[in-house]
Amino acid sequence: MTTAQDTTASPAATRADLITPALLLDRSKLTRNIQRLADRARALGVVLRPHLKTAKSIDVARIAFPDGPGPITVSTLAEAEYFAAHGYRDITYAVGLSPAAAQRAMALCARTGAEVKLLLDSPGQADALRAAREATGVVPSVLIELDCDDHRGGLKPDDPLLLEVADRVVAAGATLAGVLAHAGESYGLSTPDALVKAAENERQATVQAAKTLRAHGHPCPIVSIGSTPTAHFAENLDGITELRAGVYMFFDLVQHGVGVCTLDDLAISVLTTVIGTKPEKGWILVDAGWMALSRDRGTANQRVDQGYGLVCDESGHVLEDVIVAEASQEHGILKIRSGVGKPMPDLPIGTRLRILPNHACAMAAQHDSYAVVEGTAPEILAQWPRMRGW
Amino acid sequence: MTTAQDTTASPAATRADLITPALLLDRSKLTRNIQRLADRARALGVVLRPHLKTAKSIDVARIAFPDGPGPITVSTLAEAEYFAAHGYRDITYAVGLSPAAAQRAMALCARTGAEVKLLLDSPGQADALRAAREATGVVPSVLIELDCDDHRGGLKPDDPLLLEVADRVVAAGATLAGVLAHAGESYGLSTPDALVKAAENERQATVQAAKTLRAHGHPCPIVSIGSTPTAHFAENLDGITELRAGVYMFFDLVQHGVGVCTLDDLAISVLTTVIGTKPEKGWILVDAGWMALSRDRGTANQRVDQGYGLVCDESGHVLEDVIVAEASQEHGILKIRSGVGKPMPDLPIGTRLRILPNHACAMAAQHDSYAVVEGTAPEILAQWPRMRGW
Repeated sequence: MTTAQDTTASPAATRADLITPALLLDRSKLTRNIQRLADRARALGVVLRPHLKTAKSIDVARIAFPDGPGPITVSTLAEAEYFAAHGYRDITYAVGLSPAAAQRAMALCARTGAEVKLLLDSPGQADALRAAREATGVVPSVLIELDCDDHRGGLKPDDPLLLEVADRVVAAGATLAGVLAHAGESYGLSTPDALVKAAENERQATVQAAKTLRAHGHPCPIVSIGSTPTAHFAENLDGITELRAGVYMFFDLVQHGVGVCTLDDLAISVLTTVIGTKPEKGWILVDAGWMALSRDRGTANQRVDQGYGLVCDESGHVLEDVIVAEASQEHGILKIRSGVGKPMPDLPIGTRLRILPNHACAMAAQHDSYAVVEGTAPEILAQWPRMRGW
Repeated sequence: MTTAQDTTASPAATRADLITPALLLDRSKLTRNIQRLADRARALGVVLRPHLKTAKSIDVARIAFPDGPGPITVSTLAEAEYFAAHGYRDITYAVGLSPAAAQRAMALCARTGAEVKLLLDSPGQADALRAAREATGVVPSVLIELDCDDHRGGLKPDDPLLLEVADRVVAAGATLAGVLAHAGESYGLSTPDALVKAAENERQATVQAAKTLRAHGHPCPIVSIGSTPTAHFAENLDGITELRAGVYMFFDLVQHGVGVCTLDDLAISVLTTVIGTKPEKGWILVDAGWMALSRDRGTANQRVDQGYGLVCDESGHVLEDVIVAEASQEHGILKIRSGVGKPMPDLPIGTRLRILPNHACAMAAQHDSYAVVEGTAPEILAQWPRMRGW
């Protein structure tokens, strides 16, 4: 398989050597963002279990865990296998379970000694644990998924099914490790008050479910919550044992619109080159289209629509009101933000620019590696591979 | 890098063995779609130069060229390098040129003997050809990009710059091979009359530019047009020498909405597994989110909005009015199409389904390989890798 940069004889030494489009990762911003949430988790008295679906990189994981592997969250079993191969042993697979996934996860545990905690919300999924246990000889460890805000899957904390599912998990010979919620609707918020309220709602729903389970004889040691917005706005986490978040490592324009970060916190961007100009229309064409930026339009419903991304100069300084207004596969069209009456800066063919992401998880997924930079320095410090697939 | 399926000891023999989500490609539909446009090009008396940005696969290219490498179009120089390594020698790089790309393309030509035709629309880009020629010793072959519908880059056929650019190409020591247009706005149409008109407009604009150039002593042997909709609706191609199209090999829901294909023509889909049910809301959760389907919402502005994709049973029969209404990274939420008053079919956890793409280029780009199937048969006939990167 041909991948980005593999046609160059030696790794790029500076930004100028990179083939564009290329994904840049600012190590100093990454480290600062990771430190910020680690400090919060410590202050709130909970374990931080980073979600590695955003970074999908052992090198990024090593920044989060400088002293060796810690507890992590993943979104695919391929991620679980990748991080297990790098020594991670405490892994929560935070996507609802299919019978085939249960078998594959337990086979990974049998092979590596890792504990992969599984997520489910129905009696049928609990029953399927028996076959996975029998096939692999591993006792599955299970979290019941809760629904705190009508976002996606999970049981409401007062759903009578909660106790039935818990009993069926135990009856299948598995261990009920606890409960898990994700306040996914917090991505749609934009004021501190609303975010504090969403975090408190996530906390209360999860603690309530754990109490119900304990009252019926299920110890429920893990009480897990998290989304990047609520993780940063929770005022207290009484009754919670662990916090999960993923995009906080990189941040993005959606999180900026929610109010969780500043533009200066955004750690990834796509380096691109000007390949055309249409001065009569005020357009600049660049070689970053949706293949490099992703099709994500997550800011479309926010107060400030950033198109397919906000444009910076090559060093990372924002070119105010210049956005990627349209994107085809390998073309982006830069325009001045609609309604702002100012001229497009002069950006001749060959000029290099950076594009900040609407959604970091989606932009990063379009690339096979990170070119690691720091601040405005031109050097490429390292090339960190990303894993992908399922 | 960990990729889809690489954790299985042996390749999947049947659909049931595939880890989901997985990208399926129906070889019989692919072959039929390829044959259809090849027959049209022959009847219209033009060369077909398929755009391989959609498939990015040598195995797919071999279906289009059973007798050995033919003329192709690519959207990245990584594609040019990949197909040149597989023996392709006549390659049009249909994205506007940066100085760095000119050097890299000419280095490929010097290395392999391939001819990579370059695209440009400005005097500055023409001037940059001189350095590429001097660095590599290869005479660049150049197409001038035309703008026939205000879609993206290119010069209007009556722009005085057309002759200046042509003269500057020659002055830089390059060969002017011809002109190229792409009626990209045809994707927004939906009636045969409008498509016929767009095709004729694309033809006229391109022929006009070629005439102007010839009247000024530039031979302009290549007169190239193409987009999947106009390629299928052009009634005559007098004065045109070649036709380009890419998504026609796979087709998708956007092309179906435009009116270029039937649902039965769609050759790719994502195989997915039910991982949750919310009967009280009429929701089914599957393990195909935007990571597997892409974020493309290309049908959002069409008459029928297909959400993130239309749902079929495991054999490929459409489940009428069931769409992926919402998508997060690894979750899709199936709902009955808004406004249609019928119940969700019973799809228990573990059920396998297929999702048809809004945009085939975008869905396929999320995967590392195609699991090749034929019709409703359960067998996996082959696993074809895809290339990616820039």
